[in-house]
Amino acid sequence: MENIETLTGKYGDEGDQLLFKILNSRMYESKSKDKIRADFETSLEKNINSENLTEKALRYDLTVPFARYVVQHRNEITIPFKRFQIQPVWRADKPQKGRYREFFQCDADVIGSNSLNNEIELIHLTDDVFAELGISVLIKVNNRKILSGIAEICGAADKITDITVAIDKLDKTSVDAVITELTSKGIAETSVEKIKPLFAIKGNAAEKISFLKAYLKDSAIGLAGVNELEYVLNAIEKEGLKKATIEPDITLARGLNYYTGAIFEVKSMSGELKVSICGGGRYDDLTGIFGWKDMSGVGISFGADRIYDVMNELNLFPAAANKGTQVLFVNFGNDEEIFTRALLSQLRDNGLRVEFYPDSVKMARQMKYANDRKIPFVVIIGSNERLSGICQIKNMETGEQSSIAIKDIQTFFADKLKQA
Amino acid sequence: MENIETLTGKYGDEGDQLLFKILNSRMYESKSKDKIRADFETSLEKNINSENLTEKALRYDLTVPFARYVVQHRNEITIPFKRFQIQPVWRADKPQKGRYREFFQCDADVIGSNSLNNEIELIHLTDDVFAELGISVLIKVNNRKILSGIAEICGAADKITDITVAIDKLDKTSVDAVITELTSKGIAETSVEKIKPLFAIKGNAAEKISFLKAYLKDSAIGLAGVNELEYVLNAIEKEGLKKATIEPDITLARGLNYYTGAIFEVKSMSGELKVSICGGGRYDDLTGIFGWKDMSGVGISFGADRIYDVMNELNLFPAAANKGTQVLFVNFGNDEEIFTRALLSQLRDNGLRVEFYPDSVKMARQMKYANDRKIPFVVIIGSNERLSGICQIKNMETGEQSSIAIKDIQTFFADKLKQA
Repeated sequence: MENIETLTGKYGDEGDQLLFKILNSRMYESKSKDKIRADFETSLEKNINSENLTEKALRYDLTVPFARYVVQHRNEITIPFKRFQIQPVWRADKPQKGRYREFFQCDADVIGSNSLNNEIELIHLTDDVFAELGISVLIKVNNRKILSGIAEICGAADKITDITVAIDKLDKTSVDAVITELTSKGIAETSVEKIKPLFAIKGNAAEKISFLKAYLKDSAIGLAGVNELEYVLNAIEKEGLKKATIEPDITLARGLNYYTGAIFEVKSMSGELKVSICGGGRYDDLTGIFGWKDMSGVGISFGADRIYDVMNELNLFPAAANKGTQVLFVNFGNDEEIFTRALLSQLRDNGLRVEFYPDSVKMARQMKYANDRKIPFVVIIGSNERLSGICQIKNMETGEQSSIAIKDIQTFFADKLKQA
Repeated sequence: MENIETLTGKYGDEGDQLLFKILNSRMYESKSKDKIRADFETSLEKNINSENLTEKALRYDLTVPFARYVVQHRNEITIPFKRFQIQPVWRADKPQKGRYREFFQCDADVIGSNSLNNEIELIHLTDDVFAELGISVLIKVNNRKILSGIAEICGAADKITDITVAIDKLDKTSVDAVITELTSKGIAETSVEKIKPLFAIKGNAAEKISFLKAYLKDSAIGLAGVNELEYVLNAIEKEGLKKATIEPDITLARGLNYYTGAIFEVKSMSGELKVSICGGGRYDDLTGIFGWKDMSGVGISFGADRIYDVMNELNLFPAAANKGTQVLFVNFGNDEEIFTRALLSQLRDNGLRVEFYPDSVKMARQMKYANDRKIPFVVIIGSNERLSGICQIKNMETGEQSSIAIKDIQTFFADKLKQA
């Protein structure tokens, strides 16, 4: 969790609404009821949560807490500072398929360096990760400066947020709906007319770049954005990607207030789940809010839960990822327990995944357990087997039963399970 | 997070106080202000959080959410059901050394089996884990039934919570203080007299067990507890532990309401941090609260952050656990970047941990970065080196500089870093 003021105002208005706020603990104990009532009334009237009701909230992402961390530990870190971080984050949203209230983000950031090399490295990192996982992805890139340039060119620089929010919806809705939204936000018809050519951008990356250079020729910030985008795309084209496809997409805005340069978004190209599974961008001023200016950073965030969903849908988890029990030992009660447990301990130390049924119930029930759990082998060591030194091993798939010297169990399974 | 009613009442009164409660999201939007005021007033008068203010809370531990999970998924799981789980939990406590507001628990539980084999396996598991980590630990065991027996024997069965809370403090305070606390809770002097012999228990495990058998001879539940404790201790004595020490401790109570049988607590025996780093026990009725009776469970929970603290204090992390950058490539600007990045990509694919300084700033600053980050090697490939095919490699520890063919970098570091 974070102090509430660390988080508010960083994720757009909608983001603020999606923060899970934590009720101050023991709030009832520390103050008189009249004082608590007054605090509550203030909070209610202002339509905000007064600090007497809540002063902490759950992480919305890992980037803002990272910026807070960097400023807090500025005397202990080396600049440029790189870190990766894997932690849960929360959104107070209606849960639905692919949309979680609690999920894990895996972030990589570099802070304290303006170089576009960082953007290029992060694109390679993203490509490496998804190539390793076997997911074909489309990496969309844009630049917040291009969006500022567009707002400037169409004479509505003060409406940049409304414009980006509206055109961000182009891939989900129609051109007409976007125009209606722009108009409803009070954007003049002349401005909307100037935005319209953007809806028709076509061609490959080079063609899009040259269209933007002409379109943004009178906006210094817009041109700066196009040049950055071009530099990154050129480098990636020369260096090549392992598996991912990359394309510029000027409708890509992302709702986060803090981006100032490059913006990335990654979607899976196979399977039904076409949701965003990764995203990021450059933020010039995020640490400034916490008291350390001119520390530009750039980062990428992988959505672990959605990646898991995609991998499940596409059957990408290897069979070896299943680390279930390999062998169940049947329980015959007190007399055999200590003997069996010593054997298990030895087999476990040698890397075998073995389990001892905890209760000495009927054999049929223990067999059903092995079957339900899909445990491939069952070992039977009752008093007879212990005396003779020969145990029974049942292959649960084939039904085949073998008699093996107890001292050879380790070798038997080492061979059997290598094949499996 | 969990629904608040899943958590309340399971951790004792103090536990309820330590829950972090989440303010209902958008609570201001969905209702009239008068309705919200009325809800708040109700909550204030009852000194609880009405469900209109908060209906969710952060996990206090993993056991209660596990019981909720088991009941919710009862048609999908196989009984006895075993699971491990690693997740953060929260306590609304004042943070201090060794006491965190947010920390990771690593839990292993077996539910749906009464067998003491589970207790024995969990003790072996605990021993295995701490032997692997290199920490010498003391595993204290007790049984909640013994505590019930004590309350029964001294004629204060209804005061069991007060009695256990008081005697749990014996290792931190004096006998007199415990007696004062017992008296202050309204426990009669005759009862306190009957508790006193317990303060003087001495001897080895067998001697403590035989004292308890005599002391509890008129309490059926007390004797059941002693027998369980004896069975577990005997098995462990016969089977042996790898590194841990085990001892019965009848003052061990643990504050959690839900324990009904065995109780475990594990402390590090070396270092200054003598805090509990692991604990657990048996709970007979936890799923019953959620609608599934007679599903006894037992589990153990490792406190990852405290274990980390202990390992840090005792210097137990191996040097190989540091996966920092092995080689820094100096940045000489645009012309060399694509060449260097292709080389890095190849070295990374071969398992080398390499980094490219992102900005083409003065060499001295890049060297200082390598030094501050304790990166053992720096590679210099400027335009001359690229033309000649020979690069410079600087060993940052010895200052030694070598000229190596660029194509041989991989082999050079494979040898160098194997030794390091």
